[in-house]
Amino acid sequence: MNTFGHIYRLTSFGESHGAAIGGVIDGVPAGIEIDLAEIQTELDRRRPGQSAIVTGRRESDRVKILSGIFEGRTLGTPIGFIIENADHHSNDYETMRHCYRPSHADYTYQVKYGIRDHRGGGRSSARETASRVVAGAIAKQILKRKGINIAAYTSQVGDVALHADYRSLDLTMTETNPVRCPDETAADKMEALILEVKSQGDTVGGIVSCVVTGVPAGLGEPVFGKLHARLADAMLSINAAKGFDYGMGFAGASMRGSETIDRFICDGDKIHTETNNSGGIQGGISNGEDIYFRVAFKPVATLLQEVTTITDSGERMTLKVKGRHDPCVVPRAVPVVEAMTAMVILDAVLLDKTTHI
Amino acid sequence: MNTFGHIYRLTSFGESHGAAIGGVIDGVPAGIEIDLAEIQTELDRRRPGQSAIVTGRRESDRVKILSGIFEGRTLGTPIGFIIENADHHSNDYETMRHCYRPSHADYTYQVKYGIRDHRGGGRSSARETASRVVAGAIAKQILKRKGINIAAYTSQVGDVALHADYRSLDLTMTETNPVRCPDETAADKMEALILEVKSQGDTVGGIVSCVVTGVPAGLGEPVFGKLHARLADAMLSINAAKGFDYGMGFAGASMRGSETIDRFICDGDKIHTETNNSGGIQGGISNGEDIYFRVAFKPVATLLQEVTTITDSGERMTLKVKGRHDPCVVPRAVPVVEAMTAMVILDAVLLDKTTHI
Amino acid sequence: MNTFGHIYRLTSFGESHGAAIGGVIDGVPAGIEIDLAEIQTELDRRRPGQSAIVTGRRESDRVKILSGIFEGRTLGTPIGFIIENADHHSNDYETMRHCYRPSHADYTYQVKYGIRDHRGGGRSSARETASRVVAGAIAKQILKRKGINIAAYTSQVGDVALHADYRSLDLTMTETNPVRCPDETAADKMEALILEVKSQGDTVGGIVSCVVTGVPAGLGEPVFGKLHARLADAMLSINAAKGFDYGMGFAGASMRGSETIDRFICDGDKIHTETNNSGGIQGGISNGEDIYFRVAFKPVATLLQEVTTITDSGERMTLKVKGRHDPCVVPRAVPVVEAMTAMVILDAVLLDKTTHI
Amino acid sequence: MNTFGHIYRLTSFGESHGAAIGGVIDGVPAGIEIDLAEIQTELDRRRPGQSAIVTGRRESDRVKILSGIFEGRTLGTPIGFIIENADHHSNDYETMRHCYRPSHADYTYQVKYGIRDHRGGGRSSARETASRVVAGAIAKQILKRKGINIAAYTSQVGDVALHADYRSLDLTMTETNPVRCPDETAADKMEALILEVKSQGDTVGGIVSCVVTGVPAGLGEPVFGKLHARLADAMLSINAAKGFDYGMGFAGASMRGSETIDRFICDGDKIHTETNNSGGIQGGISNGEDIYFRVAFKPVATLLQEVTTITDSGERMTLKVKGRHDPCVVPRAVPVVEAMTAMVILDAVLLDKTTHI
Repeated sequence: MNTFGHIYRLTSFGESHGAAIGGVIDGVPAGIEIDLAEIQTELDRRRPGQSAIVTGRRESDRVKILSGIFEGRTLGTPIGFIIENADHHSNDYETMRHCYRPSHADYTYQVKYGIRDHRGGGRSSARETASRVVAGAIAKQILKRKGINIAAYTSQVGDVALHADYRSLDLTMTETNPVRCPDETAADKMEALILEVKSQGDTVGGIVSCVVTGVPAGLGEPVFGKLHARLADAMLSINAAKGFDYGMGFAGASMRGSETIDRFICDGDKIHTETNNSGGIQGGISNGEDIYFRVAFKPVATLLQEVTTITDSGERMTLKVKGRHDPCVVPRAVPVVEAMTAMVILDAVLLDKTTHI
Repeated sequence: MNTFGHIYRLTSFGESHGAAIGGVIDGVPAGIEIDLAEIQTELDRRRPGQSAIVTGRRESDRVKILSGIFEGRTLGTPIGFIIENADHHSNDYETMRHCYRPSHADYTYQVKYGIRDHRGGGRSSARETASRVVAGAIAKQILKRKGINIAAYTSQVGDVALHADYRSLDLTMTETNPVRCPDETAADKMEALILEVKSQGDTVGGIVSCVVTGVPAGLGEPVFGKLHARLADAMLSINAAKGFDYGMGFAGASMRGSETIDRFICDGDKIHTETNNSGGIQGGISNGEDIYFRVAFKPVATLLQEVTTITDSGERMTLKVKGRHDPCVVPRAVPVVEAMTAMVILDAVLLDKTTHI
Repeated sequence: MNTFGHIYRLTSFGESHGAAIGGVIDGVPAGIEIDLAEIQTELDRRRPGQSAIVTGRRESDRVKILSGIFEGRTLGTPIGFIIENADHHSNDYETMRHCYRPSHADYTYQVKYGIRDHRGGGRSSARETASRVVAGAIAKQILKRKGINIAAYTSQVGDVALHADYRSLDLTMTETNPVRCPDETAADKMEALILEVKSQGDTVGGIVSCVVTGVPAGLGEPVFGKLHARLADAMLSINAAKGFDYGMGFAGASMRGSETIDRFICDGDKIHTETNNSGGIQGGISNGEDIYFRVAFKPVATLLQEVTTITDSGERMTLKVKGRHDPCVVPRAVPVVEAMTAMVILDAVLLDKTTHI
Repeated sequence: MNTFGHIYRLTSFGESHGAAIGGVIDGVPAGIEIDLAEIQTELDRRRPGQSAIVTGRRESDRVKILSGIFEGRTLGTPIGFIIENADHHSNDYETMRHCYRPSHADYTYQVKYGIRDHRGGGRSSARETASRVVAGAIAKQILKRKGINIAAYTSQVGDVALHADYRSLDLTMTETNPVRCPDETAADKMEALILEVKSQGDTVGGIVSCVVTGVPAGLGEPVFGKLHARLADAMLSINAAKGFDYGMGFAGASMRGSETIDRFICDGDKIHTETNNSGGIQGGISNGEDIYFRVAFKPVATLLQEVTTITDSGERMTLKVKGRHDPCVVPRAVPVVEAMTAMVILDAVLLDKTTHI
């Protein structure tokens, strides 16, 4: 189950310290011009070593496209790609061979498979998300031609939360700071908090918000495969994600119907809603308003402190991880959220084409 | 996309005012004794007309099993079933033919399909969830034989929230009150709130919490199809659901790694964790601890007040819905949450059998 | 795995002597007028008891559509349907409970599932194909609106083979005789052979040929899911089918490239081929020429003679099946071949819509 | 649709003259030792340039495994692999840019996608089957541990047909001659025929037969996904395949039930059949006897003669292909047939594990 999507599908492979990670993107519409540099730009947003607040690992994360693009345009055939794993310090991980790190996947992988690549988390490493960024970057380019844009940003780090509605923010500011928060004041506080947490050898959680504009009405499926269910599935597949809500979300639990229903208004020929508590989706199908949702991330489980844990034979051991880990996953999760969103929306666009003959 | 699951799969059909709803359950393990009365009991938990706080519609919701069970045991072949739609008042709905109710799926279905069954919401009616309860009831029986139990309950209605940890509750009390809240005091407040809201012609949202015990370690898939992503997909496919989180969930966004990592402890041969902020899942794979999660539901969009809306030709109209609607969807959502959970867990149990040869 | 198709998908259920058989058709394009009487007509072509050369069982095979069609048009939602099993003589089958009939699925089902419905073959009965005829009849109606027509016919019964090319036949004659062979002379010989074989308590095999006209170029998938591979999968899923070939087929094995390549010709703007040894498919994708293929059926394994076999405890027993079995499956297989073909082609039409955005 | 299989799944990518071809194998059982040299051996069986009777192209076809195998054993995670395309003579193909070769996929790809990689057939090149050989070689190794063996061989080239039953052949002799025919006399005749045809600039068709021994009873699915339907789908996905039959196959069409039913015999506790006209599969499920089937291949469409054809603007042109093409595809198809068979059987073994809980 390393495939995501129905029509536009990514099949991902790779352990963090194997020869390479990569994937195959199937169901790509044919004849579309692809800007390869833009794919690399998205990868660079996700890559470690960008700033002081993320892991210091140096991974160049250069993607090699192996097929499916010919003379700059998609062939409609699968796009195979790899990203080589350059920065091996596998010996660093030898002490991990028999160690179960708390709140990581070491133990669960071992139980499930009876074997695991213990180096750097193997398949469970967040490095795997680079493959998603590639598939998402291509999807984003295709969606942009349809006028659909996706913008995610950091809306909370620890107890520093950006309460402003996304409509009051200038989302073009997101990339102006390393936290990826479009509000400068909040960004400064978040950055300060991350540095403080880092200096304590600790980590902190946060929230990524995401907005999709320009989505036509009619995308999504009515029962299983509701558009928001696909988004939830996509978001919860990202490492460290613990929750998802859309539109009024969890806040709606304490509200009344009379204050939350979105009344229709007619704007010439166009039908809109006065408010958008529905988050752009009604009955699982997009209604043409903006889609917006939130993804909660837990604090990274790798602390830069001494931690007591157990070995695979059940003995106590003390673990002291060396540097190069993110004190907060959220800034680097922003492009991954966008990538997974792009895959979901493009898949829905393509699937919707089969509604009529 | 009316199929859910990989191995244990429900394909659902039916409009609320057509001849019948129903489904086909494929991938059912062979040779398992099934108690048909228990399936009906689960359906009765979901059915309208149970109490003063739910819709007064009378639907007997009798399931007819048509195949796949022979002399009381599963054949391993698909279980086809139908639930006839007995309580037709289709004429009541004639005024709905050209009406788009706010925050319903009338408009989005019309845009997507160019046609819709306007009677009672058609395919978008929550009546469809009865089919899931059937598939879930069978899954629950199978899981129970493996020692896996699923218990959902109402943990919030409007601003009445049950803050207690599930471990401090007696979940066998859930069915003792119509709200399905295991805490008697909270249940009374929730019931009072629902009745108050109902008397105002309004509706209110809430939260369902769910706990799965007895899950073996090793279920779930590492990248796409993480166990919690499957649960999120399942939960967000339920009508009116707006959010999902598991383990520490959204609360984890404001926490530190040092306070949230679940340290391992050895209990003889068994490996456990001291705390369970992970919610029983690490790296997408169950770790043997309890799985727990929350599902947020919005207030039902059908108010018993006059509402101004538009017709499909864009004209203003006033809508006054007659009785028989739920003021709060949460109590009746509890068995649906359990059903979808059972399907996800059983599917994961079966899929995990293919990990080794 | 009781689902067939990617977009237009049939999920089938039912044992031959349970309450009903039926299915759910998902992915049906929305807004299409459906003639329910035509569906019944197709079912009547498949139904037992039509003539002296098929089984004498009386099954009325009335289909009940339960959802997905509203005021005569498809809703785009799943079409659920059932066909009740009226003609139960289950006691007739009590002696079958512990018997493994030779060349039937009794033994293999028992080994696989550890349980089986022994009455009339249960799930392995050809009665299941009635569900496919329903799904195929709907697909046929949809395809007809696109100018795509499907015509199957009996081209061989035992050693009576119709060697004529399909282009020299008048396929509108197929339904004029019970054998469903468009050549009257051959039809007479086939009928005589079937009656002779029947009088001997024996059975005989045969071949169904099928032609699809009006298929646009571009349908099918390049690697897996080649259009002819889909057809092969579909045809070999029909009871008693033993082989499939298309275009020049097995005959091509003894031929040279120079005599088989289909040279292009231009007919105004249109590109055609002079010959059609390719059978309308090149590289897995339709080229706009007629698609034609053959399906070989074995002689039915149920003889009306005394047969020695074994019980499920390995004891020898003598089996004498009472009447009501087909001496030759081919005439009733003709509508099933058409139905499966229609499902494959419609699925390909819908999937092809996702090739471009 | 570049994915094959349900549990053990190959997703293939690559154009023949792009950077590389390759694939991702998902659903691989965990903890199995894999002999990488054996994978290469299988690739070498398929590779061009082995002998005088196949294409003279030099492709080293070295596979690089990128993930999923760790310290010699499968991790249960996806196996990503690539085979670089070393032997580019892309300029040779410039004249092909606007040319539609007869009975190739040039025209159908162009119609479907509106774009194609014209170099060497691009995605439609038989080079793609190298990826299948990799996935099949791994499947074969896993199956061998379960006592399941797969042996394909050339049973016909042109009109030189090997009529002997496979049970009378010594299948270990298959690799002793370049034709891959286990009967030395027939092999000599086949080889002579291929050389004669080659000298004429022509090509010739043929048949590959395949036998699977050691298959346990119970594999396969009862309705869709019958074991032989999966095999048919797999075989018809191989380039140039035109037909498939199994067991008595097309010959059964002219036979009687009384001469073809396979009577049961008890061999101690074991149940067998006296004859095996069923080809080891009854009702879509394996019965424990040998599975055997045939695959018909057409003569390769690339002739080494001058051929008249058209350009993509409909103009007549004369095509003279330079060397390096197979005069008969059959010898190199043998390992591909085995590979696809191995994938189907392993997939069925894994899926069957979900039949019981």
